[in-house]
Amino acid sequence: MELFFSSDIEGGLCRLDKDESGHCVKVLRHRTGDEISVIDGCGTLYSCRITSDSPKGVEAMVLEETPDWGGHPYRLHMAVCPTKNNDRYEWFVEKACEIGLDEVSPVIGEHSERRVFKTARVEKILVSAAKQSLKGAVPVVNEPVSVKEFIGGMADGSGVGSVGGMAGGSGAGGSKAGGDGTGGPLKLIAYCFEDERVPRRNIKEVLGGYEGSDVVVLIGPEGDFSKAEAELAIQNGFIPVHLGDSRLRTETAALTAVAAVYFRYMV
Amino acid sequence: MELFFSSDIEGGLCRLDKDESGHCVKVLRHRTGDEISVIDGCGTLYSCRITSDSPKGVEAMVLEETPDWGGHPYRLHMAVCPTKNNDRYEWFVEKACEIGLDEVSPVIGEHSERRVFKTARVEKILVSAAKQSLKGAVPVVNEPVSVKEFIGGMADGSGVGSVGGMAGGSGAGGSKAGGDGTGGPLKLIAYCFEDERVPRRNIKEVLGGYEGSDVVVLIGPEGDFSKAEAELAIQNGFIPVHLGDSRLRTETAALTAVAAVYFRYMV
Repeated sequence: MELFFSSDIEGGLCRLDKDESGHCVKVLRHRTGDEISVIDGCGTLYSCRITSDSPKGVEAMVLEETPDWGGHPYRLHMAVCPTKNNDRYEWFVEKACEIGLDEVSPVIGEHSERRVFKTARVEKILVSAAKQSLKGAVPVVNEPVSVKEFIGGMADGSGVGSVGGMAGGSGAGGSKAGGDGTGGPLKLIAYCFEDERVPRRNIKEVLGGYEGSDVVVLIGPEGDFSKAEAELAIQNGFIPVHLGDSRLRTETAALTAVAAVYFRYMV
Repeated sequence: MELFFSSDIEGGLCRLDKDESGHCVKVLRHRTGDEISVIDGCGTLYSCRITSDSPKGVEAMVLEETPDWGGHPYRLHMAVCPTKNNDRYEWFVEKACEIGLDEVSPVIGEHSERRVFKTARVEKILVSAAKQSLKGAVPVVNEPVSVKEFIGGMADGSGVGSVGGMAGGSGAGGSKAGGDGTGGPLKLIAYCFEDERVPRRNIKEVLGGYEGSDVVVLIGPEGDFSKAEAELAIQNGFIPVHLGDSRLRTETAALTAVAAVYFRYMV
């Protein structure tokens, strides 16, 4: 199934941008009158008929809408420190989107070696991954913030930067009972060191005991979170978890957490 | 923790090959008398003291052995069709090793576009991944066979090509009660099409109902298994499973299955 992406669908009219139009007309040789399938990145699939086949700007008439197309029964926000090697982060977001992700926040930790992050490139990868895995919703990518800012932003239950951009499709962030009893999402932080005062719990067990469907997971950089970051997270309602006995790279830990959430809600 | 790999440890003496010796002496500047940590790829960690620091062939005396080091409480054999793009397969084996894998069989399906496979390159990636994730055992890589040959080889419960090479560490293949009641491993096949005669079951449910710890999972190529391959697998005791509602690429499906097994045995 060939999918197009458009952020310009309104009043029964869908416009493709230059890249998508070129692909539609030059590569796939679609012409006026052909039916195409378009996602809006917010969860809806549109069946459209092409009314103008310009390779610079295809226009199409909406025939049918299918909301919450390719959605999943939870809402997952992954806050993951950028990896030293960009490819590894890009690989993570692609795979996480295939499995089921709603929002990704690059967060910069005190021990992070990489402190720059290209949001636009990751957005492109996510659009491709959503199209490839037949999902109407494209995960939101937030601008990078420090780990401490992220934790502070989550403390009021509103999330960080989760307005604007392409909205995550399914679930209703913030509207369900969270793990910390405040009505926000279940907030988890995975780190590797042991702290006898706050023992880390198994992620499977914590997810299994949670009855809501709105989850945030914070994953540290290669050098792990600092003790101060972990403490701040715990003070702000994050539950410290571990991902089992295997020693995982940052991006593998992040994807393993995505899989844990996916399996938690698998029926 | 810096680890070396050696397949030549005998009688209290450990020899590193040329690559590992160069890395040890030229890059890390180890000298005679230094202590190093070496894995044998079969599950054991050796603490050794260097007795000869030649950059072409380091020799070291074994001080201490730690068997089943970095092992996991199951035995997992993934039979996965090569992906069109090699990188994607290599990424899968690296991540699967980090999470916990014992054996990988590249299998060629009737719908496979890629029919060649470089075993040696994948072996190298697995040695690196095992060292990086602090595991004593390096997963075994078998020579490619067709999907039908693989199924035939699994029918007698002995596995295909699981002799020779670097033996997987933990678990005892074939010695536990399997899912098909024959005493072999639990054999699963994941495909995408629906066959009303044999409905696919949820992998989480099938793993949850299995009391052994020896699992084989067969994952098809981009074009899926043929109906004939799926039927042959089922006739030979494979249970048809699905990986949930998400549409996953071959390598993502394979890694998701590895995560499902990992979480099944997480305590």
